[in-house]
Amino acid sequence: MVPVPVVGIHHIGIVVENLDEAIETYKKLGLTFDGIKEFPHTRIGLFRGGEGHVELFEPKDPESDLGRFLRKRGGVHHVAYAVHDIRTALAQLEQQGFELIHREPVIGLHGLPVAFVHHKSCHGVLTELVEVPADGGH
Amino acid sequence: MVPVPVVGIHHIGIVVENLDEAIETYKKLGLTFDGIKEFPHTRIGLFRGGEGHVELFEPKDPESDLGRFLRKRGGVHHVAYAVHDIRTALAQLEQQGFELIHREPVIGLHGLPVAFVHHKSCHGVLTELVEVPADGGH
Repeated sequence: MVPVPVVGIHHIGIVVENLDEAIETYKKLGLTFDGIKEFPHTRIGLFRGGEGHVELFEPKDPESDLGRFLRKRGGVHHVAYAVHDIRTALAQLEQQGFELIHREPVIGLHGLPVAFVHHKSCHGVLTELVEVPADGGH
Repeated sequence: MVPVPVVGIHHIGIVVENLDEAIETYKKLGLTFDGIKEFPHTRIGLFRGGEGHVELFEPKDPESDLGRFLRKRGGVHHVAYAVHDIRTALAQLEQQGFELIHREPVIGLHGLPVAFVHHKSCHGVLTELVEVPADGGH
């Protein structure tokens, strides 16, 4: 079986304690700030560097999944890879025994179809696929 | 101060217990395998997806830094960002109080100048800069 190729690292998701401080840090690191998205349980700072994105998550609820992740370890929460055909990629991974969190793609922060693969199937790294258009930028 | 811009996510470094198994997993995820590098204290599996790279580290010595990292948490060990001018970037970061692991760049796995910034200065994420040529691919 020829896997659907990964065409890039789409983004890194990082859990932080204080988003405002982390935003200042990531600006100084040279990433381009794209604004904040607010959700009931989390605030997310969006950054860009070339075609790569960084998402900084501040959990609002310490008992949420992200809140527990922050208490337990913090830092990089997930890695997202860009593919051109997410449905075929998910079907192939499931057939090969990967534990999928989403069997069907959902729409992610960037308005693109995304799906998560369980960290237990990826040597401890929560892994996301993001479908980017075949004709260009992600 | 205008920071030296990040022009892409160059690579992710991941610490794994069993490199041979992890290589099979990352092939199935759709990344392109670029071979193994052997060092006294670690074996490294190199992957590529578009312009992004993934490095899988298997510590040989449980008492090494990577060995302790694996016992303590495992998973993503560092994130590396591509810049065109690493010396200016390092000088700026130091001036702004970032704790640098390398004040001068060293040559990394890909034959490019690299330097690490301490995870305490980057909200828990060990962060690497990689100098890529301004005229193209990384």
